[in-house]
Amino acid sequence: MKGNVIVGQSGGPTAVINSSLAGVYRTAIDRGAKKVYGMRFGIQGLLDEQYVDLSKHIKNDLDVEILKRTPSAFLGTCRYKLPDIHENQDIYVKIFEILDKLNIECFIYIGGNDSMDTIKKLSDYAILMGKSQKFVGVPKTIDNDLALTDHTPGYGSAAKYIATSTKEVIRDGLGFSYKKKLVTIIEIMGRNAGWLTGASALSRGEDCDGPDLIYLPEVPFEIDRFVDRVRKLLEKKDVIVVAISEGIRTAEGKYISEFSAATDYVDAFGHKQLTGSASYLANVINQQVGCKARAVEFSTLQRSAAHLASRVDVNEAFMVGGAAVKAADEGDTGRMVVIDRVSDDPYQSATGIYDVHKIANGEKLVPREWINKEGTYVTEEFIDYVRPLIQGDSPCVMVGGIPRHLYMSSGRGKKGE
Amino acid sequence: MKGNVIVGQSGGPTAVINSSLAGVYRTAIDRGAKKVYGMRFGIQGLLDEQYVDLSKHIKNDLDVEILKRTPSAFLGTCRYKLPDIHENQDIYVKIFEILDKLNIECFIYIGGNDSMDTIKKLSDYAILMGKSQKFVGVPKTIDNDLALTDHTPGYGSAAKYIATSTKEVIRDGLGFSYKKKLVTIIEIMGRNAGWLTGASALSRGEDCDGPDLIYLPEVPFEIDRFVDRVRKLLEKKDVIVVAISEGIRTAEGKYISEFSAATDYVDAFGHKQLTGSASYLANVINQQVGCKARAVEFSTLQRSAAHLASRVDVNEAFMVGGAAVKAADEGDTGRMVVIDRVSDDPYQSATGIYDVHKIANGEKLVPREWINKEGTYVTEEFIDYVRPLIQGDSPCVMVGGIPRHLYMSSGRGKKGE
Repeated sequence: MKGNVIVGQSGGPTAVINSSLAGVYRTAIDRGAKKVYGMRFGIQGLLDEQYVDLSKHIKNDLDVEILKRTPSAFLGTCRYKLPDIHENQDIYVKIFEILDKLNIECFIYIGGNDSMDTIKKLSDYAILMGKSQKFVGVPKTIDNDLALTDHTPGYGSAAKYIATSTKEVIRDGLGFSYKKKLVTIIEIMGRNAGWLTGASALSRGEDCDGPDLIYLPEVPFEIDRFVDRVRKLLEKKDVIVVAISEGIRTAEGKYISEFSAATDYVDAFGHKQLTGSASYLANVINQQVGCKARAVEFSTLQRSAAHLASRVDVNEAFMVGGAAVKAADEGDTGRMVVIDRVSDDPYQSATGIYDVHKIANGEKLVPREWINKEGTYVTEEFIDYVRPLIQGDSPCVMVGGIPRHLYMSSGRGKKGE
Repeated sequence: MKGNVIVGQSGGPTAVINSSLAGVYRTAIDRGAKKVYGMRFGIQGLLDEQYVDLSKHIKNDLDVEILKRTPSAFLGTCRYKLPDIHENQDIYVKIFEILDKLNIECFIYIGGNDSMDTIKKLSDYAILMGKSQKFVGVPKTIDNDLALTDHTPGYGSAAKYIATSTKEVIRDGLGFSYKKKLVTIIEIMGRNAGWLTGASALSRGEDCDGPDLIYLPEVPFEIDRFVDRVRKLLEKKDVIVVAISEGIRTAEGKYISEFSAATDYVDAFGHKQLTGSASYLANVINQQVGCKARAVEFSTLQRSAAHLASRVDVNEAFMVGGAAVKAADEGDTGRMVVIDRVSDDPYQSATGIYDVHKIANGEKLVPREWINKEGTYVTEEFIDYVRPLIQGDSPCVMVGGIPRHLYMSSGRGKKGE
C-alpha cells in the first residue's frame, strides 16, 4: 500500500465494534499504510474535518488488545445518510477533497445497513469521477439483521450477555418462590428482528429451564392470549419468566410500548423509545392475574457489556476489519466483507465479500420456521445457529477491579490531531 | 462435632450467598458433622418440614466450586419474622421438635437484619428451655447496611457489577455525542443506604470520567436544583451521566418515584403508572431542559451477576460461612460472624464474632462525611473503603458459552429428601 487508510464507525455501538477497528488498524499497518486516520463520529464528523491519526492513540500492542475489549465506538458514531449524488454534489466534492488531501487510498466504514449505503454512494461517485480511492464496508450490529452475511459482528457478544443475564434473572426468581407466585418479564432490544430476544433461549440447559415464553417481533402479539398462557402456566409452576422483544406489536402494528404512555422521551437519534413494554405487561399481569409481576430491561447494557464478550465474536470482528483493508488494498470497492459459516460443528467461519448494491437496506428477520407454531419460543434450529457465536471468553484487562478501556482524551478531536 | 448441622438462607439474594452456603457445608463436613441439612426457603420452609440432605446435592469438590459461583439462594429464601416467644410458643416448640428429630447441633442462618432477629429469638429460646443447639448468623446483603461488620458479603460483588456496568454505560454514551446532548440517568438499588449507588464512582479512573453526579438517599433530593446542575453541566460537556439510588427522596420524605404517579400517565386500565425514579427524572430533563435523556435501571441484575463477582467477596463469603460453623461447634450461640478489616493496603480481613442482641435491626448508612457537601458525589474516603472489596475475579465454569450453576431439581424439596 502506498497511500493512507481512513476508517469510521457508524450507527449503534456494540461490544466488539472496536475489535473491528483494531483489525483495520493492524492490517493497514501490516500492509504498509503510512498513516491510518480515524474519522471522529463517522462521515458526519469527517465533513467537519474531524479526524485523528490513530497511531497517536494506539501506541503499542497492548493498546490494540485493550481496544479490542473496549465497548462502544472508540471514534464515535453518527447516523448520517448521504444525499443522492445528483441531489447534492457539493458534499461529495468536499469529502473527496479531504480524502485527496489526506492521501487516502482505502476508506473503511464499520456499520449496519445505513453505513453500507454510504459505501455504495461513495464508491459510485469515485467510479463516476475517475477517483482512485477504494471503499469497503465492515458489518456491525447487535441486531444481526444484515442480509448475505451469516451473522454480524456484535451479535454474538450481545447474545452471550442476554443468555447469561437471563439465566441469572431466572435464578434470582427461583430463590423467592416459596408460597409465592412471581412473573418476570425481560425486555430485550430488537425493533423488527428477534435475533437478540431469541438468544434468551440459550440460557436453557441441564441447570436452567430457560424462559417459559419468548415473544419476537416477527409474530403478532396478542395481549389476551399472552395473559391466558401465563395464567395456565401458573397453575403448574410458581415462577414464570417471559422474554419479549421491545418491538413486539399487535397484528395492527401497534407497539405494546405504545399502550403505556409512561416513556415519552426519545433516544439519542430522536427515535421514540420503545422501552416500557415489559413494564406495561407486568402491570397487566399484576391486575388481571392478581400475581406479583416485575419487569427487567437489559437496556443499553446488552450492547456495551464488553466484560462478557464472546471470543468468537471478538475474533471475527477483528478478522472482518482486517479483511476489509486487504480487499480495498487489492482493488475491491463498493463492497462489504461478510462472514461465511464454513462448518457448524466444529464451528468454523471465513470472510467473504459482496457487492454493497446487493446488500444495502435489506433487513434479515428470524425465519418463521425458526419460531414455534404458537409464536412463543424459538426452535432448536435457532439455538443451533446461535450457540457457536457465544463461545469462548475474552477476559478484560482488569485495573482497580474493573475492566480497562482504551481512552481518547476528551473533546471531539481537532483538525488533523 | 457429634451431631448434625442445618443451614438456611433468608432475605434478598446476592451473587455470593451460596459461597457462604458452600463454606458452611465444607467446614461442617471437615469438623465431622454426620449430616448437613439445608432448609428450603429458610425458617418458613423448615416449619413445613421442607429440608434437604445437602450431600445429595453437593456431591464432590467441583460441585462446591460451582455452588460458590451460583447466584441467588440455592436453598431458596423467605421473609419471615418469628413471633416473640411469649406471643406464640407453639412455633418454637415445633421448630425444636424438628431440630431434635434431625439431631441438629448447629443452626446456621445466612441473612440480613431480619435473619439475625431469628438467630436471637431461637438462641434465647434454647437457653430458656435448656436446649443444647447453638445458633449462629452469617451476614449477607448487597445493601451493606448491617452494623458492626466492616462490610457485608454480597456488597463487593454488587459494587463490582455497578462500577463495571456504569463504566460501560458511560462509554456507550460517549460514542453518540457528536452535535448531540444526552443525559443518562442510572437507577441503582438502595432504599435507605447509598452504598451501592456510591460504588458507581469506582468507574472513575484514567480511562473514564465516572458519573457526573451521584445522589444517595442519605441526602434529601431537590428536583429543581438537580435540573439546574444538569443544565449547568451541559454548558461544558455534551454527555452527562447521573447515578441515583432508587430511594432518593425530598426533605419531606417523598420518594422521587412517587412523583411519577402524580403525572397524568395512565395505563389502559385507567391506573396511574408507577415508573422508576430514573425514568421520571429523564422525563423531567427531557421536558425542562429540552435535551435527550434516557434511563437505565440495573434492576435485579446487580444482585445476581455472579459472572462478575469479586474474588475478595466470594472468598470472604465462604470464610464467614465456615467461621459460623466453627463458632457454633465451639459453643457460641446467639452470635453473628462479622468481617473485620485488618489492613487497607494491602487489604486484609479476618472474621470476628458479635452478640446478635447488639446487632439486630440497626441500619448502617453512608456517613455524611463520606458524601460531598453539596450531596452530589462520594468522597475519596468512600472510594478507598470500597475499592478493595471489588478486587479479583471469580471466573465461572463456562458450559455452552454461559456460566454453569449448581441446580437443585425442581420442586420445593420433599420431606427429608
